[in-house]
Amino acid sequence: MAESPVLIILAGGASSRMWPLREKSLIKFGAQPLLVTQLQQYAALGFREVIIVANLENRVDIAGLVEGMTDMKIEIVVQPEPKGMGDAILKAEPVLANRLDTPVYINQIHDVVEDKLHLDMLAAHARNPAASYLAGYEMTEYFPGGYLVVDAAGRISGMVEKPGAENRPSNLVTFVAHLHTNVGQLFEAIKAEYTKDIPSDDHYERAMDALMKGMTYQVVRYSGQWKALKFPWHVLDIMNVFLDQLKGKGQQVAESAFVAKTASLVGDVYIGEGAKIFPGAAVVGPAYIGAGVIVGNNALVRNSMVLSGSNVGFTTEVARSYVAEHVDMHACRVLDSVLASGVNFSAGCTTANLRIDKGTVSSRVKGNKLDTGRDKLGAIIGQGAFIAVDAMTMPGVKIGEGAQIGPGTHVIQDVGDGKRVYVKQEVVVSD
Amino acid sequence: MAESPVLIILAGGASSRMWPLREKSLIKFGAQPLLVTQLQQYAALGFREVIIVANLENRVDIAGLVEGMTDMKIEIVVQPEPKGMGDAILKAEPVLANRLDTPVYINQIHDVVEDKLHLDMLAAHARNPAASYLAGYEMTEYFPGGYLVVDAAGRISGMVEKPGAENRPSNLVTFVAHLHTNVGQLFEAIKAEYTKDIPSDDHYERAMDALMKGMTYQVVRYSGQWKALKFPWHVLDIMNVFLDQLKGKGQQVAESAFVAKTASLVGDVYIGEGAKIFPGAAVVGPAYIGAGVIVGNNALVRNSMVLSGSNVGFTTEVARSYVAEHVDMHACRVLDSVLASGVNFSAGCTTANLRIDKGTVSSRVKGNKLDTGRDKLGAIIGQGAFIAVDAMTMPGVKIGEGAQIGPGTHVIQDVGDGKRVYVKQEVVVSD
Amino acid sequence: MAESPVLIILAGGASSRMWPLREKSLIKFGAQPLLVTQLQQYAALGFREVIIVANLENRVDIAGLVEGMTDMKIEIVVQPEPKGMGDAILKAEPVLANRLDTPVYINQIHDVVEDKLHLDMLAAHARNPAASYLAGYEMTEYFPGGYLVVDAAGRISGMVEKPGAENRPSNLVTFVAHLHTNVGQLFEAIKAEYTKDIPSDDHYERAMDALMKGMTYQVVRYSGQWKALKFPWHVLDIMNVFLDQLKGKGQQVAESAFVAKTASLVGDVYIGEGAKIFPGAAVVGPAYIGAGVIVGNNALVRNSMVLSGSNVGFTTEVARSYVAEHVDMHACRVLDSVLASGVNFSAGCTTANLRIDKGTVSSRVKGNKLDTGRDKLGAIIGQGAFIAVDAMTMPGVKIGEGAQIGPGTHVIQDVGDGKRVYVKQEVVVSD
Repeated sequence: MAESPVLIILAGGASSRMWPLREKSLIKFGAQPLLVTQLQQYAALGFREVIIVANLENRVDIAGLVEGMTDMKIEIVVQPEPKGMGDAILKAEPVLANRLDTPVYINQIHDVVEDKLHLDMLAAHARNPAASYLAGYEMTEYFPGGYLVVDAAGRISGMVEKPGAENRPSNLVTFVAHLHTNVGQLFEAIKAEYTKDIPSDDHYERAMDALMKGMTYQVVRYSGQWKALKFPWHVLDIMNVFLDQLKGKGQQVAESAFVAKTASLVGDVYIGEGAKIFPGAAVVGPAYIGAGVIVGNNALVRNSMVLSGSNVGFTTEVARSYVAEHVDMHACRVLDSVLASGVNFSAGCTTANLRIDKGTVSSRVKGNKLDTGRDKLGAIIGQGAFIAVDAMTMPGVKIGEGAQIGPGTHVIQDVGDGKRVYVKQEVVVSD
Repeated sequence: MAESPVLIILAGGASSRMWPLREKSLIKFGAQPLLVTQLQQYAALGFREVIIVANLENRVDIAGLVEGMTDMKIEIVVQPEPKGMGDAILKAEPVLANRLDTPVYINQIHDVVEDKLHLDMLAAHARNPAASYLAGYEMTEYFPGGYLVVDAAGRISGMVEKPGAENRPSNLVTFVAHLHTNVGQLFEAIKAEYTKDIPSDDHYERAMDALMKGMTYQVVRYSGQWKALKFPWHVLDIMNVFLDQLKGKGQQVAESAFVAKTASLVGDVYIGEGAKIFPGAAVVGPAYIGAGVIVGNNALVRNSMVLSGSNVGFTTEVARSYVAEHVDMHACRVLDSVLASGVNFSAGCTTANLRIDKGTVSSRVKGNKLDTGRDKLGAIIGQGAFIAVDAMTMPGVKIGEGAQIGPGTHVIQDVGDGKRVYVKQEVVVSD
Repeated sequence: MAESPVLIILAGGASSRMWPLREKSLIKFGAQPLLVTQLQQYAALGFREVIIVANLENRVDIAGLVEGMTDMKIEIVVQPEPKGMGDAILKAEPVLANRLDTPVYINQIHDVVEDKLHLDMLAAHARNPAASYLAGYEMTEYFPGGYLVVDAAGRISGMVEKPGAENRPSNLVTFVAHLHTNVGQLFEAIKAEYTKDIPSDDHYERAMDALMKGMTYQVVRYSGQWKALKFPWHVLDIMNVFLDQLKGKGQQVAESAFVAKTASLVGDVYIGEGAKIFPGAAVVGPAYIGAGVIVGNNALVRNSMVLSGSNVGFTTEVARSYVAEHVDMHACRVLDSVLASGVNFSAGCTTANLRIDKGTVSSRVKGNKLDTGRDKLGAIIGQGAFIAVDAMTMPGVKIGEGAQIGPGTHVIQDVGDGKRVYVKQEVVVSD
């Protein structure tokens, strides 16, 4: 049997595009952060050693998270500056210095895929340990990413970035699930690229191009679920991946949970310890209700995740939304939205989720307007923001951490961290 | 037995006073347009031949509607210009040219009455086919319409228009349920009036005045229900006539409908095929829920009609309102209102239905402010209008077809077809 | 056994600090005014004679209220001008003129305490009728009121007003539960103070200081519930005293009341005659629902009092609030608020109850901003005020009698009696 590869998980990328949310690997889906869930998945698949490439900001948090994990040997290395993926991978070199002939399997923390991909990669490696393997995501529609150039036998001769719909060399989009059979060769090839004076940070891709000339790279085709957490609205996509895992499991209700006689649980729902579903409330699956959550009288949660300690007050509707921990909502409508922990969303508030012209919703990221591709998207609200009564957010709007939105405000553009926004009404008083 | 009269149904009047609604005869009450329901009623009463006087705009639609009706012989004639009721009646002449001695029974499509009136008219005619008959609506309070001048034996000698409360010749108000025993004489009398140079369009009334001198016109007294569809808020009155027909029939729930265990059906309600009444929702009769309608969690529909394919979303209230097909409502309050098909009424919206001074509600029709006589009246909203979140309409306001009302707007006056209305807030942002 | 003391109830204080509410003694908690409830409590404890000191405004109402009470002999005397408590007490002199050696027990109508205090006062008097007794409220935290100076044997030698936290002579705060063993001596001492030219209205306190030099005043310690009705938000405190009395009594539902099958009664609730709790509604105890009240579909009342004839409409929430008689609420949120009788609180309205900075709520009384000490406080709304749809009140705001608040208004400061407040929106109309 082939040697089991060492996992290299890239978790050092900046999360600035996730504003007003924070560090992606720490976002909880269900009871634990994405990083932990991903690591558990790898452990269950048989991986025994992981090197996590962190950055200066998240290394302490990540170290705390993995402390208790004993299924795998976990090392954390740090990439101090964002100098590209090649540089990130090189940070693993000291850990592997005395066994440079080991195979490595490189993944990104923010790519969420099914077991099948990893199993197929491992199986291919087991069949022929001499070759390296890159995943190729089978896509019918054009996607503006990198495409693999592949021959009939599945051997990869190169990659083409954004070739245009007409010039695709294959239907196989690249993404980072890369099994290199010899990490020493990989390190050398990357280092060679960093010595060149090319004004571009695709050293890793160029290194692979070089390696392909001398050794066999085979494609492993994949057509299962693949969701990447790049922009904050992607939290909804990742949430859906986890909600999908509830499907077919029926109603998992913790013993210490309370479900009122006139409350309704419909479909596949998970109700955590000590949660309370009050009279007239409904939870419509797939839905995850965390520990200690209160779903108040006549409230509705559907196709959503509400994390522990949050309060879904009277007649509140949470639909297709991600609600982090200790969020207070009351008589409001949270639709297709992401609420970070500690947000207060007051009575009468609504996250409008549909453009009047019914077009897809756009949102600004670092100054640029991006089409989110979503027909429905509400708001994304940072930790601890306070949204006062009767406020309304326009589709795709983002509100920063600790921001305060005054009563009745129409939030029509992004609000920075800690900003306070108030509306002045022109009032007429008469006898 | 007397010859059964040929029905002449006047359906050619302009519907401009119905704005933002369209053609009256096509408005659906329950599953089918008013015209079809009226025709079925006549067929059930034994009528065998109908001439419908249409106009250039509605003739195609009307032709389509009556195509499948085989109970009666139906002919459609067209009055191309609005030249008065006399002219409309004359359009039936070609159809009846070879049998000018036939009796005709003239009705207007927008008058909704009980069977009893028609039966009494037919019975009177059967007893004495030589006479003609006009319905007289018994009214105790003064009504600013036409009154019949009647002797003790019920013979009519004339009509007086708006005589004033003090000068009423009788308590019998005229309305168009007229059985003329000889249509040829009627045609001639009308034509004679059109040859005169009188600047008034009451040729038909004048023709009757002339006929009364030579032949017997008897009154048929009527005190049952009579509702006329002249102004758009009359849709609520006509709706109530049809809702009244549900009374005493209990709960008619289609087999394919779904009613959740914790949903409530109260009183006389009709639930159509495939409709879904979700947990915690209530339908309080008399109420008509069309095929495929969804009454969402904790929503309430009472004393209302919601036509097929509409969506009464979470915690929405529809009270004493008419909601046409494919209307989307969500977490809003539709009170004493008329929503045409395809309207989007978003979360947090309310149709205010009560004046602060508690006076009757007025509304503008073709530039004139009319007292609707209603203590409660919400909004009347044309086809396909989009009302964004948290909008509010003042009592009696009308919104045109395809109009767009921005978030949080107070709609205090009528909005034209296709107009877009937005509110600019004065916003203060601070640190 | 000692002679039973004559009760003197001070009800003549002005209620101007209660604006926009009226006369305190007439405010109903449950089915009857505070005055009646208090008198019944005294009668049940064995008191047989009461002198009520009224003022020119409330004497007729008070006379009407006590008319039918036969358990005790009740006399009403009037203090025409607000000349201090000493003057108020002297108004009882004519009634007691021929028995000046009687003991009297002086209480204020707006102090709500437990039976225990009165029983302890009576027991102390029975043990030693020769002494007089003042209640001392045991308080650990400093309270800016009067403190008793007491020796080890409980003998009172004086009172100190607002001594500061450091200089408290005891932990015993004074409040008006004063049993004087000889009313004649009290009258004389008060009169003596009124002959002096001291620019202060504490004649009564000075009289007691003088009396203490010659006779024994003993403290009766009390640590039970004590709530005083001084400011309008205190209505909520007094309400809670009465709601507490429901505790442990379970569900008291009048026979003529209707509770729908899917409605929920939770905890200790009182449902009055003819009240209707509609499907999906919930009443969460302790809560008092008066006669004929309607709690509409999917509405919620918790920890509140809703008096007879009021209407808690569809999806309305009433939480920790006092709602007087004949109040109409619809699809709104009444939180930590006081609504006087006849208020109309329309759909979409909310009483914001929480400051964004989470500080305690302040409110203005007679021009001065007072800290109410409450973390949560909504609005206080005077009789007959009309609050139109989508209005919002800021925490601690007060709205005068008969005021009209237009749609969508943010009420950020107090609104005077009869005032009308409207908002002008800047509207943009385009094609």
